[in-house]
Amino acid sequence: MKKNFKLIITYDGTKYLGWQKQNTDLDKTIQGKLENIIKKMTGETLDLIGSGRTDAGVHARMQVANFYWDTNESAKYVKKYINQYLPEDVAVTEVQEVPERFHSRYNAKSKTYLYRIHLKDYMPVFDRKYVYHLEETLNLKRMIEASQELVGEHDFKGFASKNNKKTTVRSIYAVQVEQVEDEIKIWITANGFLYNMVRIIVGTLLEVGRNEREVSSIKEILKIKDRAMAGETAPAQGLILYEVAY
Amino acid sequence: MKKNFKLIITYDGTKYLGWQKQNTDLDKTIQGKLENIIKKMTGETLDLIGSGRTDAGVHARMQVANFYWDTNESAKYVKKYINQYLPEDVAVTEVQEVPERFHSRYNAKSKTYLYRIHLKDYMPVFDRKYVYHLEETLNLKRMIEASQELVGEHDFKGFASKNNKKTTVRSIYAVQVEQVEDEIKIWITANGFLYNMVRIIVGTLLEVGRNEREVSSIKEILKIKDRAMAGETAPAQGLILYEVAY
Repeated sequence: MKKNFKLIITYDGTKYLGWQKQNTDLDKTIQGKLENIIKKMTGETLDLIGSGRTDAGVHARMQVANFYWDTNESAKYVKKYINQYLPEDVAVTEVQEVPERFHSRYNAKSKTYLYRIHLKDYMPVFDRKYVYHLEETLNLKRMIEASQELVGEHDFKGFASKNNKKTTVRSIYAVQVEQVEDEIKIWITANGFLYNMVRIIVGTLLEVGRNEREVSSIKEILKIKDRAMAGETAPAQGLILYEVAY
Repeated sequence: MKKNFKLIITYDGTKYLGWQKQNTDLDKTIQGKLENIIKKMTGETLDLIGSGRTDAGVHARMQVANFYWDTNESAKYVKKYINQYLPEDVAVTEVQEVPERFHSRYNAKSKTYLYRIHLKDYMPVFDRKYVYHLEETLNLKRMIEASQELVGEHDFKGFASKNNKKTTVRSIYAVQVEQVEDEIKIWITANGFLYNMVRIIVGTLLEVGRNEREVSSIKEILKIKDRAMAGETAPAQGLILYEVAY
């Protein structure tokens, strides 16, 4: 019986080239690593469809993927099998049998990314691989103000590194910038993201927080659509794919 | 002017042989590493007095230490200097000038350790170095009941690996066993701890949680004081020195 298995995957992206498999170094991508294990389990070369890419060094609390397999095995079996071959920085937290029409990428309604910035004057040792450590004082109020300019349907071409997508129009549903003790958390929910989009947004908001950039420049970038006008791409290690909603 | 500097130190103990310096591999102990940096800073060989040891692989959220230095430099300078030479798994979170009589070990009123056990059927990837991952179901109620037998002043010889202390009597002020989602947290506060004491207590409570051991056996071990009666020593990686109170 042909079954459609939906996987929820969590990973520490530090050592990986990102989600998407590449011709070389299959084991250095999350998708490649998982497909290798699925091949071992099924004896077949099956495609694992992810909800979308994550860049090299980016983490995921909840990535979603699915694959089709003609089998009598259960979701429980699949979860157990895959986890036993995964290294300790990748884990499958859930496996479910879902209707055939479910597609991780096409059916994703929104994704939420979280970017973490630590402002302490020392390295937060336990979280050091999951935050961007920046010894600075930032103007949170300005960052919040600027972040709200991003909400809505816009052409985000100015906030993308390169583009191989048909359209650069996306809808950001919500941006939340909050400070908890010495950590700034930036949450962004959208119907989709362009290449490096979250990291360029964060880099731009950081410049606003440093008073190096006007709040109004966000509107300008959205209007003029020039990547050179936006801020630097913030480091991958502070970024985590937090959730995919269907 | 002779100054007494109090340091608060946080470390990921994974790669270290513990707090206490050893004749060889000075850089593989936290104390040795810090004393090396202090030597570089002061040009002198100064003793760094810690609140107590932590074993190989054990972490610290808040270890306390102090050292005396005849200098005009400020606490701020000391913090900045030391942190710039520390690797990313050790950090000094606070430096304070304190009265000469302050002694990290003698003045410590109590210490709190936290032991974290993850019960999920997959590896919690972001916390994987700071928890004991155990794919089991435990009887929390029995563990809580047993844990309360430990509170008070007792001879904990049966809960120590080896002993080179004058007395094995200690006072446990509080033990808290709680489950938050799939994680069990065990907090123990005492006026002092014997070698491996927390880890042997945790190993013993785990056997109670598995229904492999009677709750009443805790009392027996305290009475008969035989290490062989207690449970296995739980792994170092789940243990963290949470707080030292003065």
